[in-house]
Amino acid sequence: VFAEDGLMHAVRKGFRYLECSTVSPETTKRVQAALREKGADALEAPVTGSKNGADQGTLLFMTGGPRAVHEELMPVMMAMGTKAIYCGEMGQGSTMKLIGNHFISLMLEALCEGVVVGRKHGLALETILEVVQASGFASPYFAFKGAAIGKRDWSEHFAIDLLVKDQTLMLETAAAARVPMPGLAAVREVFQSARAQGFGREDICAVVKTLERAAGEPS
Amino acid sequence: VFAEDGLMHAVRKGFRYLECSTVSPETTKRVQAALREKGADALEAPVTGSKNGADQGTLLFMTGGPRAVHEELMPVMMAMGTKAIYCGEMGQGSTMKLIGNHFISLMLEALCEGVVVGRKHGLALETILEVVQASGFASPYFAFKGAAIGKRDWSEHFAIDLLVKDQTLMLETAAAARVPMPGLAAVREVFQSARAQGFGREDICAVVKTLERAAGEPS
Amino acid sequence: VFAEDGLMHAVRKGFRYLECSTVSPETTKRVQAALREKGADALEAPVTGSKNGADQGTLLFMTGGPRAVHEELMPVMMAMGTKAIYCGEMGQGSTMKLIGNHFISLMLEALCEGVVVGRKHGLALETILEVVQASGFASPYFAFKGAAIGKRDWSEHFAIDLLVKDQTLMLETAAAARVPMPGLAAVREVFQSARAQGFGREDICAVVKTLERAAGEPS
Amino acid sequence: VFAEDGLMHAVRKGFRYLECSTVSPETTKRVQAALREKGADALEAPVTGSKNGADQGTLLFMTGGPRAVHEELMPVMMAMGTKAIYCGEMGQGSTMKLIGNHFISLMLEALCEGVVVGRKHGLALETILEVVQASGFASPYFAFKGAAIGKRDWSEHFAIDLLVKDQTLMLETAAAARVPMPGLAAVREVFQSARAQGFGREDICAVVKTLERAAGEPS
Repeated sequence: VFAEDGLMHAVRKGFRYLECSTVSPETTKRVQAALREKGADALEAPVTGSKNGADQGTLLFMTGGPRAVHEELMPVMMAMGTKAIYCGEMGQGSTMKLIGNHFISLMLEALCEGVVVGRKHGLALETILEVVQASGFASPYFAFKGAAIGKRDWSEHFAIDLLVKDQTLMLETAAAARVPMPGLAAVREVFQSARAQGFGREDICAVVKTLERAAGEPS
Repeated sequence: VFAEDGLMHAVRKGFRYLECSTVSPETTKRVQAALREKGADALEAPVTGSKNGADQGTLLFMTGGPRAVHEELMPVMMAMGTKAIYCGEMGQGSTMKLIGNHFISLMLEALCEGVVVGRKHGLALETILEVVQASGFASPYFAFKGAAIGKRDWSEHFAIDLLVKDQTLMLETAAAARVPMPGLAAVREVFQSARAQGFGREDICAVVKTLERAAGEPS
Repeated sequence: VFAEDGLMHAVRKGFRYLECSTVSPETTKRVQAALREKGADALEAPVTGSKNGADQGTLLFMTGGPRAVHEELMPVMMAMGTKAIYCGEMGQGSTMKLIGNHFISLMLEALCEGVVVGRKHGLALETILEVVQASGFASPYFAFKGAAIGKRDWSEHFAIDLLVKDQTLMLETAAAARVPMPGLAAVREVFQSARAQGFGREDICAVVKTLERAAGEPS
Repeated sequence: VFAEDGLMHAVRKGFRYLECSTVSPETTKRVQAALREKGADALEAPVTGSKNGADQGTLLFMTGGPRAVHEELMPVMMAMGTKAIYCGEMGQGSTMKLIGNHFISLMLEALCEGVVVGRKHGLALETILEVVQASGFASPYFAFKGAAIGKRDWSEHFAIDLLVKDQTLMLETAAAARVPMPGLAAVREVFQSARAQGFGREDICAVVKTLERAAGEPS
């Protein structure tokens, strides 16, 4: 955005900028401030949904910025996705997105630790998934990632490198607000290890291989 | 079971023992061995589902032991609950139950860390829940516990003291199989802190108060 | 002690029992109670000092029990070691010993994490040790374990299996007093992983191999 | 350094820049590159030693950069401190400094967790320190910080805010090299909590108050 040949040069009064990638709340605030100086404005609108989600138009936007701009850009978002939830002022959409990836991190860690300890005690992945999905803490996410783990299919929907980037942004955002996140901090080191072991470009469910190695299993 | 005036004295050939509480896999194996010496047998069948679940017959059993005994005791279980999933031999039902509570632990930690960091950045609990529940990692569990947190209603469905007991059993069971569980280990200390702060008999969602205190908020 | 052919049968009035191994405070209290019923008494006196310490009489005892028994058994302890510090009533010697091994755990983790990250940035182990030992946080322990790591000499002074046993006792003792130990909890999972990877009988400094693997290095 | 009215404008050929503060290895490398373009050069030389150390000339420098510049600036450093250890090329002095603060972090966490759990079991701080200092893992650091904790003297030698800054730089530096640091990651969240609770400008040993609160003690 700020690069010498970047977007800012093209900005005119009334211009609207829709930021869909996951960046830090600080970054989106800076972009907005720069745009406003030129009579333009921005809406941050990070998305959730896998690659497949993008293909099939099932993306969910979580937006931050002026509500009027949210309304204004609704048609644009609805062309790409199915839902847009207004989270509040600039920065809060990004924060929400990071919180979402924090949920994903702990849910996936729960699944993978559970799968490794279960297997060592003779419990099949299918049994674990059957019980989890019949219980009150069921989630489509466990079915989605559990199936990939079962097939040992690491093809990327969401790369470990990217999740670690977001975990780090989340911890920085939490530090700025002085909130300890002991669960996420522990889990980030596991994903960090997965990167170190060469799985950074694989799907985040490949973190199970790191936990298998930590448990002394070949993988 | 083994107490002097315990169950063992009453055991006759053909007796069937249904263990529904959450104990360590080692314990259920020991009970089974003792019963078999007397021509009896056991089925472990820990349950999931809240107090309300018990009232309304929506309990889920996860069983371990001989499959024949599972079938035999099916009518008994169906009188109390709605589903019974056979997990494998004795010990595997208990292990499954502990894995389930491990899932709960990390999901609740994810929710509570997310709520505290979100609030400090001005994100309403309702917004977080709306986004989470519209996403691929939605779960009825987040709605259930999120609602209680929103009302700051700590009345007990599952007490912190009990969850910590199960987290400890899980870590012991994992240690026996030499499986590190870095996520659960970190999270257990948070719940441990909640006990220390006097919330042991409150519902597990009261752990959010411990995270609030860690973040310097009065609560 | 309590076994059928155990010590208790030989106990007479005035008998003194010196418990030198590392057990839980609960255990030593139980032993003492049983002995007192017979007019005997016990002193717990776990030791610190490596195998070499035992050979050369440089063991340090940390005792718990009646001070009179501590004085009474002083000559026995001084025949084996060089110092005995009275820690307080029965259980407090064991607690002190566990706290000592907790110190060792975090200091060794500090050294090993530091060595692995330093090496990846081109810092020699010798340089790290030179700086640490010239600083205010120097310790003979870093020289001792650093030298072994430098030679990749994993011959056992204190086995990983034993340290994990004590870390677990420490966490149980802390849980009984409702004290969270987030540092130790995280570190125990690393040592747990070392056991899983087959290093349980090697010296505790072999944990560096587990951290190397976590960092994607062959080892 | 790079500010508009900064040092760079004054740089002439042959100029030598001595960077004594603790910054990231990336930063010192950037400074060096800029200086070299002008025929000048830099040496990074972060220090260890408390405020008192600075007063009394007992500071230790750990340097990174060209060895010739290290030799050239030796007299300057010896005017302020007592020792300078050459760590290697630019960036390695900073890395060493961060590793040193990582040691401090885990040693202080060990001490504070030990003090809190010991006290709950009736073990006096003085007893813990006596045993630790008589053992192989003794360190002047434990005496220094233990004394302050005993007097509940939180006057700042090294502020929690600054240590957290360095812990964060260490984790970033480790992430760049793909090294997980599970111990430090857990400990940083505890210090983060201390900041949140208002202890950021107090000495790092004030983190014991955070652990006391986590253990349900008033403080």
